[in-house]
Amino acid sequence: MSLALLLLQLAIILVTARLCGLALRALGQPMVIGEMAAGILLGPIVFGALFPEWHRQLFPPASLPGLASLANIGVVLFMFIVGAELRAPSGMGAMLSAASRVALCSMVLPMGLGIAIAPALHPALAPAGVAFWPFALFMGVALSITAFPVLARILKDRKLTRTRIGQLSLGAAGMVDALAWILLALVVALASAGAGLAGFLRIALGLLLMVGVVFLAVKPLLAWFLRVHAPDGTPSPMVLATLVIGMLVCAMLTEWLHLHAVFGAFLFGIALPRDDRLLHALSERIEPLSVVILMPIFFALAGLGTSAGAFGDAALGALGLILLTASVGKIVGGAAGARMSGYGWPESLATGSLMNSRGLMELIVIKVGLDTGLIGAELFTMLLVMALVTTAATGPLLSLIAWRRPAAVDRNTAS
Amino acid sequence: MSLALLLLQLAIILVTARLCGLALRALGQPMVIGEMAAGILLGPIVFGALFPEWHRQLFPPASLPGLASLANIGVVLFMFIVGAELRAPSGMGAMLSAASRVALCSMVLPMGLGIAIAPALHPALAPAGVAFWPFALFMGVALSITAFPVLARILKDRKLTRTRIGQLSLGAAGMVDALAWILLALVVALASAGAGLAGFLRIALGLLLMVGVVFLAVKPLLAWFLRVHAPDGTPSPMVLATLVIGMLVCAMLTEWLHLHAVFGAFLFGIALPRDDRLLHALSERIEPLSVVILMPIFFALAGLGTSAGAFGDAALGALGLILLTASVGKIVGGAAGARMSGYGWPESLATGSLMNSRGLMELIVIKVGLDTGLIGAELFTMLLVMALVTTAATGPLLSLIAWRRPAAVDRNTAS
Repeated sequence: MSLALLLLQLAIILVTARLCGLALRALGQPMVIGEMAAGILLGPIVFGALFPEWHRQLFPPASLPGLASLANIGVVLFMFIVGAELRAPSGMGAMLSAASRVALCSMVLPMGLGIAIAPALHPALAPAGVAFWPFALFMGVALSITAFPVLARILKDRKLTRTRIGQLSLGAAGMVDALAWILLALVVALASAGAGLAGFLRIALGLLLMVGVVFLAVKPLLAWFLRVHAPDGTPSPMVLATLVIGMLVCAMLTEWLHLHAVFGAFLFGIALPRDDRLLHALSERIEPLSVVILMPIFFALAGLGTSAGAFGDAALGALGLILLTASVGKIVGGAAGARMSGYGWPESLATGSLMNSRGLMELIVIKVGLDTGLIGAELFTMLLVMALVTTAATGPLLSLIAWRRPAAVDRNTAS
Repeated sequence: MSLALLLLQLAIILVTARLCGLALRALGQPMVIGEMAAGILLGPIVFGALFPEWHRQLFPPASLPGLASLANIGVVLFMFIVGAELRAPSGMGAMLSAASRVALCSMVLPMGLGIAIAPALHPALAPAGVAFWPFALFMGVALSITAFPVLARILKDRKLTRTRIGQLSLGAAGMVDALAWILLALVVALASAGAGLAGFLRIALGLLLMVGVVFLAVKPLLAWFLRVHAPDGTPSPMVLATLVIGMLVCAMLTEWLHLHAVFGAFLFGIALPRDDRLLHALSERIEPLSVVILMPIFFALAGLGTSAGAFGDAALGALGLILLTASVGKIVGGAAGARMSGYGWPESLATGSLMNSRGLMELIVIKVGLDTGLIGAELFTMLLVMALVTTAATGPLLSLIAWRRPAAVDRNTAS
């Protein structure tokens, strides 16, 4: 019966994800927001509250390991592709330094605000035994994420990819991504090591060693291997299997370091040569199943981890505080970075609004926090809602700015 | 720790599968035989016997559900593609009637032999409570399988696809496939229903109803849906998700009928329109991950289900008997069918040898038998060895025949 249940779970998860995705796309939102919302719908807050008996029968605890292995392989494959597609922002020096200013400002401000509100959240919302600083730093990182892939999708949907603010925010988001993952790894290392400095150093050194080996040995080895075995950029099954094995080993090593498998997968993706044909062929082979089939399972499992407590009277204040600091930090920080680089106010505000989309990346970050015990179900739910709302707000905010000053976000402004 | 273990398991499974595949390819065998052998290596017979402690730590029972969900999704996706790629043998009427003669003879003879040896095997090897006839019929079906996909791969490797015997055996294998799955479904239905005729009828009627609905309603619906949403044969993520959902539902329904999920997936694949561009695009999106990554997990789980008892002194006789009847039945039956259609002896023998390759299909069939309790671990192991040996023998047998009479299997004999 267990395989029948797994197939039923998958069918229901995929149908819900698709329907929510289509519904939100009809509202002008990117599909991924609908898929994330579908996860919440299937969790205890909606489906579990409305039909508790069905919910228990559809998602009994014993069935979750089977779902989890599919979801984990999906998210690891996805992060591998994200790492492989990450590249240094190209273009003129001016754009590059503007992007780094936007990246820095739009990280530092929400991170500072996240740490600043941590004293208010820690007593009620931190799991027992989690010290203040790991919690506060995690909140800082959680608020300072920008979703590179979702941002890329929003820009593409609105035909903004080649505009000045499109390139600016994409470059900045790429930098934020790389930086945020390093910071998150350090925070998780700090938390897993508990109070002991020795433990933290061990994890940090392990990570440093791994990064060193990957960049100094694995990267050239991969470049050589792919030059010999996939000279035309088309990976044979053998090449694909080799890459996936390397990715699995890296993911396993970071998991063993008490970090999270996504770091290793992401790192291995970065180590791939920046060969457009290869990356295209890889994502063609990996994305359909991992993004279309496995990621919705990840969202559904995230939804099962939510808690209705996040919407209690006492908790609504915290939710509002998180939403406010996250949005203000990103929008103001991003806008300040652009303004400092000489962009006008409308363009700067549009850039800040774009930096405020967090999407899937935020979900992965907070799932890491939940899995490693840094946050509990309630705070996880609040951060999930924050990720949904800030991402969903990006489109309308852009339209608002464009309505006030159409030229700012018009695609003809591309230089 | 559990995600680290899953990643380690996957890395070891993929590395073993690839190494064995490469080793056997160096011996002129199709890769899939190596991947199947890798599963046996990782099981209790080799790895478990040599390093029992490591084996226990690498594959603890609690970790198997996570692996099983990946393997099951892999095999269900694979059978969906096999169903989608199955098509009525094309070509002249003479070839068609020859193929049906080969198919019929190469099924009836091994099936008869399988039933004939069942009385010798049933007392010692049938699980307690399995009645004689379901067991005997299952043995008949298990011996009469021909692996359509592996056969296609062997023919392609040897550049025989367009020869007379290539087309003859491919056409016959396609017919055997379709027929064998129907028979297996009936045998499983008979077994699950126990002695009760009512139970059997319920399952058989359920299956009949499902086949009717799929062919009369789902098939035209799918054709319409794909004409509208994938007019150029390229499935969008939405189309891909819809197809996978339909496939999952069909797989779940057959599982609920106490058959096996693979039947439903296969059936849904058959219901797809025979559009080459669509099928190509589908297998491009589904095969890389499912064949390269997930199928080796299926082989490894099959290997974990084996038992060293199959190589005990008492059991070797049974193993020999199975090997002999399986090979003689297929080769003689296939050759007789070709001979009756006017082919010369060398060509007829080559056709019989090709029909004797069982590969992956056999593995799926005997895993169904193991999962539904029709056979136990020992007989499962013997049938697995039989599948490996008969498939591996196909190439050498062809070379032997070609050495004696090169023209018979030369690609220039294509009419």
